[in-house]
Amino acid sequence: MTSAIDPSSVHRKLRGKISICGKAPIRTISDLATLYTPGVAKPCLEIAKDSKLAYDMTMKGNTVAIVTDGTRVLGLGDIGPEAALPVMEGKALIMQQFAGIDAFPICLREKDPDRIVEIVKAISPGFGAINLEDISTPKVFYIEKRLTEELDIPVFHDDQHGTAIVSLAGLYNALGVAGKEIGKVKVGIVGAGSAGYAIAKLLHAAGFPDIVVFDSKGALSASRRDIDEHKMLLAGFNKSGYSGPLAGFAGADIIISASRPGALPHEAIRAMNKPNIVFALANPIPELSLEEAKSLKIDIFGTGRSDYPNQINNSLCFPGFLRALLDLRVRKITDGMKIAAARGISGAVSHPAKDRIVPDVFDKSVVERILREVKKAVAENE
Amino acid sequence: MTSAIDPSSVHRKLRGKISICGKAPIRTISDLATLYTPGVAKPCLEIAKDSKLAYDMTMKGNTVAIVTDGTRVLGLGDIGPEAALPVMEGKALIMQQFAGIDAFPICLREKDPDRIVEIVKAISPGFGAINLEDISTPKVFYIEKRLTEELDIPVFHDDQHGTAIVSLAGLYNALGVAGKEIGKVKVGIVGAGSAGYAIAKLLHAAGFPDIVVFDSKGALSASRRDIDEHKMLLAGFNKSGYSGPLAGFAGADIIISASRPGALPHEAIRAMNKPNIVFALANPIPELSLEEAKSLKIDIFGTGRSDYPNQINNSLCFPGFLRALLDLRVRKITDGMKIAAARGISGAVSHPAKDRIVPDVFDKSVVERILREVKKAVAENE
Repeated sequence: MTSAIDPSSVHRKLRGKISICGKAPIRTISDLATLYTPGVAKPCLEIAKDSKLAYDMTMKGNTVAIVTDGTRVLGLGDIGPEAALPVMEGKALIMQQFAGIDAFPICLREKDPDRIVEIVKAISPGFGAINLEDISTPKVFYIEKRLTEELDIPVFHDDQHGTAIVSLAGLYNALGVAGKEIGKVKVGIVGAGSAGYAIAKLLHAAGFPDIVVFDSKGALSASRRDIDEHKMLLAGFNKSGYSGPLAGFAGADIIISASRPGALPHEAIRAMNKPNIVFALANPIPELSLEEAKSLKIDIFGTGRSDYPNQINNSLCFPGFLRALLDLRVRKITDGMKIAAARGISGAVSHPAKDRIVPDVFDKSVVERILREVKKAVAENE
Repeated sequence: MTSAIDPSSVHRKLRGKISICGKAPIRTISDLATLYTPGVAKPCLEIAKDSKLAYDMTMKGNTVAIVTDGTRVLGLGDIGPEAALPVMEGKALIMQQFAGIDAFPICLREKDPDRIVEIVKAISPGFGAINLEDISTPKVFYIEKRLTEELDIPVFHDDQHGTAIVSLAGLYNALGVAGKEIGKVKVGIVGAGSAGYAIAKLLHAAGFPDIVVFDSKGALSASRRDIDEHKMLLAGFNKSGYSGPLAGFAGADIIISASRPGALPHEAIRAMNKPNIVFALANPIPELSLEEAKSLKIDIFGTGRSDYPNQINNSLCFPGFLRALLDLRVRKITDGMKIAAARGISGAVSHPAKDRIVPDVFDKSVVERILREVKKAVAENE
């Protein structure tokens, strides 16, 4: 985690990790007359007649707004819109470098969910997709739901869908290595924030039959009376009906934690069905260290850390998935598309092994594989 | 005006005139850890403590939002936010190529002025300046006024200030060529929209003593009872008290029209004081053709056309002026800064002549000259 390079001085030197580039030079009066006035009036009038032509004649079709209100940036909490900029620029840089996407940070000085919805709707004409980022829960669920219903471009929430897709991709390979089947495993999920919520929903959609989600008070089950509608939905996936604390949870084949260091009691790990699969996704410090995982004899262990094996990293998903959403002009993201993206990512690992259930973050084939799988999923639903 | 190049097919080929470029490659885990997680947390936390550091560690300080609602695009009227994109992209392209500014189009599906203000305020944290563009009058005056009061970054309205600054730059040289003095000339301005309004105000601030502005009903004067507060202000510049129609207006040294073809009656031109100066700024077709100007024996004639001499083109101003606003971290634009910018532009013409009162649009020295003059103006006021 430590490094000789000081990230702050690198950021000071760069003064921004992305910039605007021109796609055509303006060197002559003729360039100016074609790309600006008076010539530009012609494409303007064509788009005025049919706004869909903006996809053919402008940057819209390749452009993503990375929208945040700075209320839940990384694990740093509510640090405000200016302080969120380095993260959003980093995300835009990755989208550009990994998938040739033009993504631009929109950091909002506005925390009210309804107003955020109105603002994103208002700025949407120039964008081909919206990427919501680092907005606190539960309001981000409401924002995502309303935008998905009310916008004519897709709305991706990386903290939910990105994490869920990469987790599912890892599970596909991990289950193969462990010799287990999706339809027969029991899953525990620790944390009911953006990531936990989305992972549970996607695993349910992908056919996992028994998913027990834990919040700080214990298992989400039908007997809980203190939970909101989002957690109620998750309680419905708890088929075995476990209603106790995480420390007493036994018989899981898979535990995925998206919580904080220390949130995974060793008893729960020891009580799992072997071979077991544990993802400890807290960032930057996972719930368990590699040493703890070894001493607990976890068979397949994944984290968000780049210096551990099996890095469950959103960067494996969002460049390729947004590339697919743009290229296929997807209007609404479906579970089928997310599952397809997970298949694309897992398929990039040619020989899965205990310490190799997800591809390398720099594997150039991942974007192409996601695109191909999502394309198939879209075609099958048409 | 016609060309062998079809602007629509060029726009179709480009699919956007600007794109996002990365300023640092992401090739290794170390790059990712420095520019994205976990390293990015460090600059985030520094900015969280002092939001001004966003200027040093992010793209904010070099980034401009080009904001429109698409209600008054070029001379095409209310064509909507998608159709406005090609113009906004063109503007961003010019800012990039002429002045190295990172400008990004924000095309709003929202026409209500108060909501536009709230949206621009909400998105402002990521930007170093706001460029309002092609928003209909009079609401744009209200939007500009509120944003200028309520934002901590400068708000430039090119349709007003850009046109006014370049017009003043042209007048500085034209008056020199004509051998006349600012303090002794009479000015007629045709049109009280964004451009006419701003030109009148800037000329007043620059010391022109008698400015008669005409709307479609005649001269704006103290006797008019049908005019709003903006036009009332302009009526105050009408020192000679003329209250008749444009066709009966006599004795002007300068007439600037920002209206439409046919708006300049030949009688008014013939009744001017010689040598006379006429700017016919309607776009793309000026109020008078070059042939008409010749037959009317206009001494110094300027238009927005690139194939005529004396192109009064906003591109002479906005790249350099926004460069100056960003570099000097100006919070509010003053008349002094606008006048300084006009001096910078006019100074780029080494030997002013009747057909050479403004520099060439591609004169690379203009940006630097504007920056230098605005810097002096800012320093004098500190």
